Order: sequence, then C-alpha cells, then structure tokens
Amino acid sequence: MKRYERLADQLSGLIKRGDLPPGARIPSVRAACKAWGVSPSTVFRAYYLLENRGMIKARARSGYFVSSASRELPRQSPETSLGTDPKTVNISDLVFEVLKTIRQPQTVPLGSAFMSPMLFPMARVGKSCATANRSTDLATMVDSLPPGHEDLRKLISLRYLMAGMTVPVDEIIITSGTLEALTLGAQLLADPGDVIAIEKPTFYAALQAIERLRLNVVQIPVDPVEGHDLDALARALQQLPVRACWFMTTFHNPTGVTLRDSRKQALVDLLARHDVPLIEDDVYNELHFGPDPVRPAKFFDRNGLVIHCGSFAKCLAPGYRIGWAAAGRFAGGLERAKWMSTLSASVPAQRAIADYLRHGGYERFLHKLRRELAHQQSQMLEAISRYFPANTTATRSDGGYFTWVALPDHIDSLQFFQAALSSGISVAPGPIFSADGAFRHRVRLNYGYPWSAQFDKAAATLGALCADESRCGAKLAGPVRPA
Amino acid sequence: MKRYERLADQLSGLIKRGDLPPGARIPSVRAACKAWGVSPSTVFRAYYLLENRGMIKARARSGYFVSSASRELPRQSPETSLGTDPKTVNISDLVFEVLKTIRQPQTVPLGSAFMSPMLFPMARVGKSCATANRSTDLATMVDSLPPGHEDLRKLISLRYLMAGMTVPVDEIIITSGTLEALTLGAQLLADPGDVIAIEKPTFYAALQAIERLRLNVVQIPVDPVEGHDLDALARALQQLPVRACWFMTTFHNPTGVTLRDSRKQALVDLLARHDVPLIEDDVYNELHFGPDPVRPAKFFDRNGLVIHCGSFAKCLAPGYRIGWAAAGRFAGGLERAKWMSTLSASVPAQRAIADYLRHGGYERFLHKLRRELAHQQSQMLEAISRYFPANTTATRSDGGYFTWVALPDHIDSLQFFQAALSSGISVAPGPIFSADGAFRHRVRLNYGYPWSAQFDKAAATLGALCADESRCGAKLAGPVRPA
Repeated sequence: MKRYERLADQLSGLIKRGDLPPGARIPSVRAACKAWGVSPSTVFRAYYLLENRGMIKARARSGYFVSSASRELPRQSPETSLGTDPKTVNISDLVFEVLKTIRQPQTVPLGSAFMSPMLFPMARVGKSCATANRSTDLATMVDSLPPGHEDLRKLISLRYLMAGMTVPVDEIIITSGTLEALTLGAQLLADPGDVIAIEKPTFYAALQAIERLRLNVVQIPVDPVEGHDLDALARALQQLPVRACWFMTTFHNPTGVTLRDSRKQALVDLLARHDVPLIEDDVYNELHFGPDPVRPAKFFDRNGLVIHCGSFAKCLAPGYRIGWAAAGRFAGGLERAKWMSTLSASVPAQRAIADYLRHGGYERFLHKLRRELAHQQSQMLEAISRYFPANTTATRSDGGYFTWVALPDHIDSLQFFQAALSSGISVAPGPIFSADGAFRHRVRLNYGYPWSAQFDKAAATLGALCADESRCGAKLAGPVRPA
Repeated sequence: MKRYERLADQLSGLIKRGDLPPGARIPSVRAACKAWGVSPSTVFRAYYLLENRGMIKARARSGYFVSSASRELPRQSPETSLGTDPKTVNISDLVFEVLKTIRQPQTVPLGSAFMSPMLFPMARVGKSCATANRSTDLATMVDSLPPGHEDLRKLISLRYLMAGMTVPVDEIIITSGTLEALTLGAQLLADPGDVIAIEKPTFYAALQAIERLRLNVVQIPVDPVEGHDLDALARALQQLPVRACWFMTTFHNPTGVTLRDSRKQALVDLLARHDVPLIEDDVYNELHFGPDPVRPAKFFDRNGLVIHCGSFAKCLAPGYRIGWAAAGRFAGGLERAKWMSTLSASVPAQRAIADYLRHGGYERFLHKLRRELAHQQSQMLEAISRYFPANTTATRSDGGYFTWVALPDHIDSLQFFQAALSSGISVAPGPIFSADGAFRHRVRLNYGYPWSAQFDKAAATLGALCADESRCGAKLAGPVRPA
C-alpha cells in the first residue's frame, strides 16, 4: 500500500468512526504535512482519493470538508457457495427481457450496461473518423486485416507502457468489440462441454456467450469487498479439468470490486501452477477514480498465460466496436480465430480511433471523465442512503460505473425489476448475473449518467418500492428459471 | 429465357461453330432487328451480353466484331463424388499458408479472394464516412444495436425491392461482415457434431468457419457449368439428418457458376419438402455482367426458410465490414445471436454506407464496375487461352471475379502453387476448396484487377510452369492433408 493510500485510510477511519463528522473541516494540506510528516503531494493524492470516494468535498477557497454522504454503507457479506459443481448455462431469455428495456427511451436507465453517450467525446472522435477516412489509403485496407491496424496496435502497446507494462505489438489483436476478444479466447481454449471457471456474480454477456459456446462453468464466488475467492478457485482447479478462467479483476461488473495487487499476483501464480490460462475482461480499466492506473492481472503474468481484453467502447467510442486482446502465448491462435470469425474489425473505426489517440486529447478527456464518474457514484450512493431502507447495502467502487445493491431480504429483485419498469425505471436484477438464478435480493444500478432531478426522483421511487411488499415481496416471486 | 438471351445464344452458337469467325463483323442493330424480327432494345441487350462474355467487341464507329478470344474454353466435366458421407473439417493450416501470400505486396495476386481496392469508390465512401460521423448523434448509437442501423436496413430493403423482391426491414440484421451473418446462421441452425450440407468445391472461409463450429459436413458437388447437383442433395437429405445447407447459388466461389432460375426454384422446393433451411451466401450478387439483376434462391422462398446473406465488402466498401442477413423466419434468433457474438456492427461504418447509398451514386458506380470486371474476365480468359496448355479449361462466369481452372492432369496444384509463388505469383490451389483435399489439378484465378502487362506476364509464367513437370508434376506431390 502506498503512503497516500495509508493516509487516506487513516482519514477514512476517522470519518467512519464519527471523529470527523459530516460537515467537519479536514486539515489543510500544510497542516496535514506537518501532522503526519508527509509531502504535500502525498496529502493531495490522499484527499483526491477521498474526494473520489465521496467522503470529502472541496469548497472553493475554503478547503476540504467531510461530505454529508460519508456514512459508509454496510459491507456486504461474502457469498458462501463453493461452486465446484459444473453447470450448463441457460440465461438468455431472462437477459433479453431485461435488455429490451434499454431501448425504451423514456425509461430512466439505471439498469443499463452503458454509460451516458453524452459523456463521450463523440464529436471529436467523429472528427477523427472524418479526417482518417477522407482519403483512399489502400495499404491500410490490407494493414487492417488481422491482427489489425498496425498504428492502432502500436498506440495500444504505448498505453500499456505508460501504465508500466511491456506488451509487444505482436501480442495485440484488434477485435470487433471486446466481447469478440473474450469469446474467441474462450473458444480457442475450451471445446463444447469443457469446463471454464467464471465469476459469481458475473456480467450476463459472459454467460450468454458461454451459453452460445455450449461450455460448462464452475462459478467462483466474488465477494463485493474482497473480490475473487481464490480458495474456491484452488479447489475447483484441483477437482475439475478447468480449461480457462474468464475473470474481471478490476472494477468488476456487477460488484465494482477490484482484486488487490497481492491477490492478483496470487491468482496469476495459482493459475500458472495449474497451467490454466486467464481470459481477463478489463474493459473498465481506464475508468479509475484514483490518480494512478490500476494494474490488471496481466501485469503479474510471466508465462504468457493471460489474454488481456481491452476496449474503447467504455472509455472513448461506444458503437465503434473496437476492442483488443493482448493474448500472450495465445496470440497466434487468436489471430487465426479472428480471421475465421469476422475477418477484420471495421477499418474506418480502427483508423478513427488511431487518429484520436494521436491528436484527440485522450488523457485530458479521461481525466475529466474519471472525476465525473466518481462524482456520480457519490450522488448515487447518497441517494441510496437517503431513500432506500436502512438495511440496504451498496458497494462503493474505485472505478467504473456500477454499484451492486443488496436490497432487504423481503424484496425479490425480479418483482422489483417489473415494478420499477412500470414506474419508468430500469434496474438490472440479480438473477441475470449468474448461471443459477442466485442474487434474488440484489440489483445492479448504473451511475454512468450525470446526476439530475430525474435520477434523484427515480432513486426515491425505487426506495419507496422497497416498502411496497405487495409489489416486490419475495413471497410473491415466481419460480427461478432453472439453470 | 428472355428474348435477348435467346438471341445472344443463337449468335453465340454461330460464333462457336465458326460460322462467325474471329474478326467477323456482327450485323448492325438495324439489320439484326430486321433479320430476327426483334426490337432494337432486344438486339442491344443481346450484344451487351455477348460483349460482357467477351465474345464480341465494339469498335468505335464501326459496329461489333467477333472477338479474337471467342474460342470457348472446353466445358469442365461434372464432379462424380456423391458426397453422402459426413466429414469433419480440418483445412485451416493449408488455408492460412495460402492466405499469408496475399500480404506479400510484391506478389501478383491471382490467388487473392479480394478485388483490387483501386476499383472501389473508397474516396467517395470515405467522404460519406466523414459526413455521417462528423456530429454526435446519440439516437444512432442505440439505433445501431441489433438488428442494426434502421436507415441502412431500410435502404437494403429498398434494393431488394428494386431487384423485384419484397424483404421486410424486420427481417434484415446488420452484421460485422457477411462471414458473421453466415456463421451465426450456421450456429443457430446446427449444434457441434450436426451435419450441414455444403458445396464441393466451396469457399475455404466457409470450411474454416465450419471447422471452428465443429460441424460435420456432407459435400454436394457443384458442376462448373450446371451448378449444384440437386439429385445428390436429395439423396443426402433422405439419408442424413441435414440441419441446414450453406450454398452460394449465384457467381459461386470458386467456380463462378450460377444456378439457373428453374433449378433455384427446384432447390428451394426440395428444401421446403424436408423443412431444411438454406443459408445463402450471395456476396457477389451485385457484380452481374448482364443488364439485369440475378435472382437469388431467396427470391423463390415462400416459407421463410432462406437466410440470405449479403455484403457491401465485394461491391462497395471492403474493410468497412458491413454485411447483413435477410433471415426469414430465423430473424429473431439471428438477432439474438448477433447480440451474443459481437453486439452491434461498427456504427460509423453503418452510417457511412447508409449515407453513400443515399447520396454517393451507387448505381452509376456499379454499372462501371460491372463492365470493368466483365472486361477483365475476357482478358484473363484470353491470356489463359493463349499461354496455358491446350487441354486447360477455365470457367466463364456471368458475374464476380473468379475463374476455376482445370490444369492438365499431370499438374499438381499444390506444387503449382509453390512454384508460382517462387515466381512472385499467387494462385489459390484446388485442395483448399473442399473438406477432403480434392481438386488437385485445379486452381482458382482472380480477375478482379485491371489487366496490365504485369498480369499478362504472370499468365505467361503460369502457362510455362504447366510445362515444367519437374516443378509441378503430380508424381512429385506430397500426401494430401487428411480430411
């Protein structure tokens, strides 16, 4: 743990215990340097972190104050399922029912998997698209065949380098969105009927892809605070012929949790001992609220066993469908698989993103986006804290735009989903996030939209629904879809 | 058969029999009208057809003359394999070896699957890309999710209408290239281990996709003149649990053959009796040399059993990776499958093509392209006729840009491929076009490039290689890759 993180934790403890109550002034940077014997830069970073966590707020020309929303929501209890029983996956019908709701433009999109399109520099990327595709460039047409546009691959390699990682250009394969990178990886490593290890809960698109590939899964619990249960994974690796893991170790969807560096290292070591590859879904990596990049599991890989899958869809240009895999020792196989699935990714989109990365001001944009998302998280958690029953819990993340909410036990989240929808609000109900319809009291809420009166009102409506047992009560719930 | 086609056939007969020898003048339009009792427009269309077939040539202000390349190459004999023995597919290694050659910029690309990028209106499509993506348009981002960009789908539906077909917009799903449409169709209709019917020969990308999907195949012979062997298909349907057909009935790759309308009708009827869907790969449809569009099998479908897969990659914008499926009764399933594979096709590319179709002058471009390709076919066949051994045969197509060449029996096409490559020329060897390494004396040649001295020289080199048994002899051939 770095010095500024230790300092932030100390302050965080003071705030949580009430030693620094809401509204209290936080020591000035000068006073803090003196009090804790650290540099101004350390204090600044610690305060930045606390601000991003929504625990303190800056007031112009007055310094920092403890935020009114600083009451931490209760920690969620770890899942108990050990998950060493391979399952087939059959989740799509339910997922599609939920997905339909995102096309209804009048619905408040708390259930959406997408961030507000307003937050992206679409006009600037569009300009890059125009610039980069105005002329005929025959060489680029061929250059963009798998493994993909060479300049773009070099720029991605450079971004890895800026995050402290050496990922050779040769390892990088551009794909038609990250979902393609992930599924090609799974398809390369496992045959139909084979077992792969996935998370529980996990992003439903992973479940759908696995259903389509007819793989079996063993579900590894992900605790909303601690992350992946490595003991459960170790047992699964011993007991089952696991062909690969498909994990999201940073800003996990839906919980928002990030596996600590030491545990990422342990995960990679464990997999290396069993020679099991990791397909790492890292699409939210750029959306960190803290000042420093978060290291993916790939950082700790010395054996080429990690296929690191990244995206521009979540942090720059949704709809362009440009993702990539840094595929380690599987680069050759993945490149072939790419040829055989959709040939190349769209050339104008590859060119546009390469042009934007060179000339668009990506760092400046990301800096702004990260602050906005951190701020939106604070507002979402504040609203949950205000409107939802006291025994509600919600996760606070260091990046991304999801919070995983545990509703009171008497609420059935599928009923809640239906009731919310008839009030014009979408939520993502817990049961779509696992292969066995678990998480019946949980929902994932999206704070990827600028907070507004409409969102505040939606949060209030959801809170009120929790009190309405006649509409959301668990006793009324129909049978869980068989897994 | 239409009147102008009958007239063209009559003239063609006269030319083939030598009644009208090379250099002879063809009757003027006025004389022809009188002689055959037809309208000037019929004569004009017949002459246009013959010109596209390379049999006659116009000279400015002098009328039409029999072309010097009018010697028809001998007809190829039908394949005899009955193909009712399901096989697994394992062709990729060989295909990738061949594909590598297209990346070598110095190689004369007679083995390429692509047309010359110079022939496409890339600058104009780039302009559409710029125009359509300059501004932020949030609605389009959501609109472009499966089934895809609504305006583009309407424009595709309109093109069907112009070709005399009613295909509702609801049936059309935009995909990341046509290969995705085809593979999603196959994946939807058949599970791993199931049997689907494919062509022999067939496009190797289909074989690779099928290998990836772990399907078994029954191979239906495609005669280079008559097209698909419907008797063999009927037997296969009786004897095997065929889940779907994957056929290209128009400008077939590699043979160039088009199934006649009456036989397309018979194919569709046969499949309807067995309730077996047809995945129709129709990517060359727009590249017809005659004046009228060619009807796909989809035209004859009354049961929603045909998934018609189209493309803009072969006729407008390679690299944009925009294809589609008009999926009949499978539209719902295919839309879901698209969600689960690569989510949406690239939005800027969808927008660009929609803009081009509205404003770019597509018809004018296609008209020019079709004439160029027809002309290039004549030049290619003329060169084969001039340089290759007399017992060489090559197919003449009514569209597309491939000819399927049967080399003399003493030539092994894999040896020929290697020898050609060391002379700086790529060819596509016959064995990559089937699941069992057949067609060892055949190669596919690409005439999708403007003819030039370089191509003429390459044809001469290939012709000379045929005489060089020490380098291309069948007796020297290694073992065929097991199927």
